[in-house]
This record gives sequence, C-alpha cells and structure tokens, in this order.
Amino acid sequence: MRAVDLIRKKRDAREHSREEINFLIHGYTNGDIPDYQMAAWLMAAWIRKLSPAETQALTEAMLRSGEVFDHSDLPMKKVDKHSTGGVGDNTSLILAPIVAEGGLAVPMISGRGLGHTGGTLDKLEAIPGFNTALPQADFRRVLRECRMSLIGQTAEIAPADKKIYALRDATSTVENIGLICASIMSKKLAEGIDALVLDVKTGPGAFMDQEDDAVQLAEVMVQTARGMGKKCVALLTDMSQPLGRMAGHSNEVIEAIDVLKGKGPEDLRELSIELSAWMFYLGERCRFVEEGRKLAEETIRSGRALERLRACIGLQGGDPRVIDDRTLLPGAKFKAHVTSPRSGYVAATRCRDFGIALAMLEGGRGKKEDTIDHGVGLEFHKRIGDHVQVGEKLVTIDYNSEVRLAEAKQLILESFEFTGQPVAAPPLIRRVIGE
Amino acid sequence: MRAVDLIRKKRDAREHSREEINFLIHGYTNGDIPDYQMAAWLMAAWIRKLSPAETQALTEAMLRSGEVFDHSDLPMKKVDKHSTGGVGDNTSLILAPIVAEGGLAVPMISGRGLGHTGGTLDKLEAIPGFNTALPQADFRRVLRECRMSLIGQTAEIAPADKKIYALRDATSTVENIGLICASIMSKKLAEGIDALVLDVKTGPGAFMDQEDDAVQLAEVMVQTARGMGKKCVALLTDMSQPLGRMAGHSNEVIEAIDVLKGKGPEDLRELSIELSAWMFYLGERCRFVEEGRKLAEETIRSGRALERLRACIGLQGGDPRVIDDRTLLPGAKFKAHVTSPRSGYVAATRCRDFGIALAMLEGGRGKKEDTIDHGVGLEFHKRIGDHVQVGEKLVTIDYNSEVRLAEAKQLILESFEFTGQPVAAPPLIRRVIGE
Repeated sequence: MRAVDLIRKKRDAREHSREEINFLIHGYTNGDIPDYQMAAWLMAAWIRKLSPAETQALTEAMLRSGEVFDHSDLPMKKVDKHSTGGVGDNTSLILAPIVAEGGLAVPMISGRGLGHTGGTLDKLEAIPGFNTALPQADFRRVLRECRMSLIGQTAEIAPADKKIYALRDATSTVENIGLICASIMSKKLAEGIDALVLDVKTGPGAFMDQEDDAVQLAEVMVQTARGMGKKCVALLTDMSQPLGRMAGHSNEVIEAIDVLKGKGPEDLRELSIELSAWMFYLGERCRFVEEGRKLAEETIRSGRALERLRACIGLQGGDPRVIDDRTLLPGAKFKAHVTSPRSGYVAATRCRDFGIALAMLEGGRGKKEDTIDHGVGLEFHKRIGDHVQVGEKLVTIDYNSEVRLAEAKQLILESFEFTGQPVAAPPLIRRVIGE
Repeated sequence: MRAVDLIRKKRDAREHSREEINFLIHGYTNGDIPDYQMAAWLMAAWIRKLSPAETQALTEAMLRSGEVFDHSDLPMKKVDKHSTGGVGDNTSLILAPIVAEGGLAVPMISGRGLGHTGGTLDKLEAIPGFNTALPQADFRRVLRECRMSLIGQTAEIAPADKKIYALRDATSTVENIGLICASIMSKKLAEGIDALVLDVKTGPGAFMDQEDDAVQLAEVMVQTARGMGKKCVALLTDMSQPLGRMAGHSNEVIEAIDVLKGKGPEDLRELSIELSAWMFYLGERCRFVEEGRKLAEETIRSGRALERLRACIGLQGGDPRVIDDRTLLPGAKFKAHVTSPRSGYVAATRCRDFGIALAMLEGGRGKKEDTIDHGVGLEFHKRIGDHVQVGEKLVTIDYNSEVRLAEAKQLILESFEFTGQPVAAPPLIRRVIGE
C-alpha cells in the first residue's frame, strides 16, 4: 500500500477500506507518511467527504493511536456528554455533579475554548487552585472518591488527532463532518465510557450553523459510537442565542452553581436536566428518560448535586468556598452596557459575534496561544421574543481593559435584530437523534 | 495575506487574483510556505480546477521564479515546439534541423521520458558523446553556430516548477489542466522564444486520452502563451497508435535520420513537416502555412536539414558518423516477434501499453531513477486499418534481457484489437487550435 495511491483514491471520490484508513493513520502517526501527503489527503477528504464507514474506521484508527482509559474497576456505568460548542454553554459543570450524584461515574476529559466558543477546561480554571492537569493516578482517585473528575487532554490520548488537528488548522480542512466526528469521538471514546450523550448545537452561535449539517454530524457521531459498542444519542439544540444569561468564565461558573442551587435561568436548567436524564437512561440508571429527569431534579432539590461539585472542586485542588462566595472568583473592575437603539421585539441574534466580542475583551481566545482573562464576561438581559424599550439594557459587559471595548460594544449591538411584531422564542431542544 | 486563507479560497472553488497566486508561488519557492500547505492547495486546485486567468498567473509566477533566457543578440526569430508526449514521437529531432535550416533559431530545452512516453533528451543521449547538459555559454555558442541546440532543464529555469512538480508527484495532483499548462509553459517560455507550436496528443497513447481534455489543455496553453506576448498555436494530433514505425531510443534516432534523408514513414514525415510549417509561419519566415510546408520539404529534399543535424551533433560533442552508420548507435542483441493471433483488420491499439512494454525491457523508465537501455526498441509492422494474416508479424522486439520479455510480449499482443470489417485509418492531425 502506498500513500500516494490512497490520496488518488480519495481525490477521485472513491471509498477507502478500513485497512487503507489504518495504513494512513498509523503511517502518519509514526512519521512514515509526511505532512504534505497527509495534507493532500485531508483536502481530498474535505472536498470529497468521508462515508460513515470511513468515518468510523478513521475514529477507531485515531483512538487506537493512543491510550484508552480502563475504568472497569469501578462497578457503575461510566457516561459522558460532549457538546459541539457555543456561547454560554456551561452544562458540563452542572450535569457532571448531577449524574455522579445519581449513581453513575463521569470521567470527563474536556477541551479549551477557541474562537467564539468557550471551553469547559478554561471555565474550571476560573476556580482558584482547580487543577485540570491531574496525573492519571489522581484522575482515577478523584473519580473513585466522588464519581466525577474533570481534566484536560493528556499526551497519551489519541496522539493522531493532535497531529492531524494541527495540520487541519494550517490547511483549511477543519469544517468537515467526517473529520470533526473522528476528532471528537477518538478523544471521547478514549475516556473508557459505556455511553455518551451528544449536544449538537445548531444556529448562528454553533460551528454548524446550518441545521442539515448539524443533523448529519449528529447522525454520523451516533452511528460511529454505536459501531464501537457504545450507547449514544444526540440532542440537536438551539444556539440561535446564548445558553443561559451569562458568558465568560467566572460568570458561567457562577451561573452553573446557581442552577445547582435550584436557581439560574430556565433554559440552562432545562437543557442540563435533559442531558442528565439521557445520561441516566443510557447509563441504565433508569428505564425511561422521564425517570432520569425526575432523578436529576431530585439531586438539585436535595442540594446533593451541589455538594458533589463542592467535593470535586476540593479533590482537584480548587477552593470549594467559591460555591458560597462568588467574590473568590476572578472578577472585572468595570461595567459597561449595550442599550437598545429602538423599541420592539428581539427577533434574532448573530450569536457567534457575542463570543467574538468576549474574546476581544480577553474573555476568550482568538488564537490557541492567547491567554484568557477569566473575570471578563457578558450578561444578556434580553432573549429572542422579549420586548425591549429604546435605551433599555441589552447586555452588561464586565471588563478590565478598554483597549477593544468600543469595538466589542459595537459588535454586540449589531448582533441584535429587532422587529415591531411579536416573535416566538425558538425551541431549545429541536430533536433527539438516535432515540 | 496568509496561505491558510488562500487554501480555503481554492477549497471553496473561488478564483484567485494574480497577487494571490504570486504570493503562493513566491512564498513556496523561498520556503516561507511549507510543503504541507502547498500540498493542500494543490489538491484543492486539482479538484476545483484553475481558471484560464489563474493558469496564466501561475505560469508567469513560476516562470519568474527563475532565469529567462535572452537570445536577443540573435537577429532571427526564436521558435520551438512542445509535444505533450506519446509513443514513438521523435519529431523534435526532425523539425529542429528543418526549422534551423529554414532560417529560424531553435533553442530547445527538452525533458526525459517517464512512464509510457519517451523523452527527447534520452533519445539524443543514444548518440555516443552527445552532451545534453551544456553550460549556458556553450548552449548559446551552438545556437549561434548552427541555429539549433538541444539541452535539458537547468537548475536556473523555473525552480518553482521543479519543487511543485516533485510535490504533485507525491500527492497525486499531476493530471490537472491548469497545473500541467503552468508546468510546461513556465519552462518553455524560459527559453526566450518568440513563438511556440504545441503538439497536443490525444487518444490511448497520450496523457490526455479524452479528446475534450486535450482540447481544453491546448486552448489554455495557447491562451497562456499569447497572454504573455508569444505567438502560439496547437495541433491536436492522433495518438491512437505509435507515431512512425519505431519506438525506443536508437530506433527513433534512426527513424528521424531516415525522414531527413527523404525516407521514413509517411505519418512521421507528414507531422514533422506540418509542425515545421507552423513554426515557420509563427516565426514570420513565411506568410502562409502552405509556404512553410514547401520550405520544410525543400530543406529535406536538398539534404541540408540532414547536414544541419550532423553539424549540431558534432557541436554538442556527439559522433556525427551515426548519420551514415547506424551501427554506431547502441543496439540490441536479440530479436523477438509478436505475431497476429487471427486474420482481419487492426481496429485499435492500447497504444500506452506499447510504451509500458518498452519500459519493461528497460527501454523506458517506470520511475524517475531508472536507467535506460538505449538499444532496446519496438518496430511496428501493422497500423490501424491494415489487413493482417494469422501468424503475420505485428511487432518486432529488439531486446537485451529476457527478464520481463514474456510479460512485455503478452502486453503488446493484448494491445491490439482486430475486426473482420475494414477499418479507416484515423486522421493524423485532428484540428489546429488557435489558428
């Protein structure tokens, strides 16, 4: 087998066998296949697309390029959730303690934010002392002690993905359903889980702004996970506006704690409970999803989910007092407001631009190397369908530097669309795929 | 400007500006743009194609990456011919002395054979002592003294093409009309010529076996040359069977000399005269192509074209006695015959396979690094439309090693198709493009 022939095959839109995919990924990971051949193959795969069978083979080959965690010493089912990312999406911080408290284990390996989206890892690091880079032995210990642990990627997990992702980034071959699926799933399935719930975002704040693309991605991810013996469903959820009322790192930690205290915004609470319910169901903790919802609500009502988060923070070196004292989180020195230029109803938002505005204020990353100001944040006062008076506050900005403030304010203002007619709020959960 | 954005642009099938193409080629040649980004761009360009404007910009950028010869010290027009390659195509050895004798200068820079096609450079090297690697000063001297000189690529000509071609070869991005045009034309136009006649082959022995593709390539090459201020036409010619009766290096030198002696096969003579006539016409040596034909025929009839070839061989260090004594050329020790399995008419040939069979016997190169046995050759006794009896000779093989003889014989035999019905011989010159 020769790489040049496999490149030609994909160039000509023909389907690879499993052996061919293995040859490519193994050869690239060990350095036999040079970057330039992989780059040509990636571009051919981007344009010609990968079939579901190719996607599954690619995912498996990338998974097998590294270590797969084994938590079989823990008696309960291991489950996780993955979100394709959006603005204000902090459900991981809420559902991990709910599901752990409900009796399953959540060995969660998360990523960092990039571009307009935030990352769970960055949010956790807003908590003073919280260590997201635990050695494997400590990760196991925390998981054993409180049934949840939240860490970042390790060098041992799917090294093929790291190498390929860097190349995709430099060759404009990122946004492709098969390649995205393999990248996500090769890392998630390395967690050693039994079941995975996917939160696939759609709308102007998602990577996949077209619903058709999001559905395709969801379907191929579910199919891939199942092909590898994992239970899996995907919830197709709305990202036509931010999730919850807050964006920014400290802000989102605070809002997650609020939800676990039985408060917080309704949409965030609803989605967290729904995702938890599916995790309970796939993890065989209950026979029906509805039972899972009740169980999730009960862990909140009793305050036990909150206590589990507190325990996890402590076990991972963080300051658990943040649960009760939000001033211990990094904050912002100044506040500014974006106010409505007219009266009417909020008709739509260019949700992605909120994330970009946040990154302008150093509350996100434009490039991988950027540092983050965890104290910077946005608070959204109006949602799609809400009525607004001229001059009324739309967004409050917590900021520390004025350098790009005017630009960020302008971008936020322009992200709102208004109408004189009443508008229905968009449904939060559009579909369940693979039900 | 960033390479990653230009890759994305071509990936999305958008057209590059001239500045963008310059940025890519300049950056790649000087090492600012790495191989993997160029490889991704090449695959995107292969699949999405290049427009005529992009092709011309690419050709110019590649041409400007190196030296462009300047023969303005010579008073006459400088002209050349380029063939896209086939089996038994040795017209360069015939038309260069005809055109030089007719009063124009022919500063010909040729390539080597690869795969099923032969290369002019390799054929010249069958002549004992012939030096195809003349230093530039000697190339100019020979050109001044006999108005023709035949050398190979120098390191100074279009270095971008060398670097890009090696990458295309390793990434399955060779067969693309825009990329082929830029590769050919950036080298040919570095010769410092005023006019170029293209011999674009079509049929099963050509790189472009589909006539539509060959026409497209011809059109874009003509357009590119004219866009750069050169006169240019393309002849679309038949490669449904070998040109002439001979293939192989010594064999083709002998056949070329035969044509210059007023003998040789009719098709080879006709095409050589036609190409010469267009060179005379574009080089403003005559007002009509028909005048050019007469002039070409006259240079043969008078024996002066042959004498010019003899002079050139001598000036380039070769043994001019090969003109009269073909035994001075490398030969083959053994002969074998492929005979007809049935009576009937030759209906078609898989012409490319003759070239591959020749390479099997070391009369061509499977890979760039292969050495060539100049003495090995094929002689074709039957052409499309000819009647043949069962057992009659189709092809005579001159060979030196039996290693792959049986395989080559089989391939040659299977390359012939027969029919019981009379078949018309295919026309040699199908169209003139850019007339």
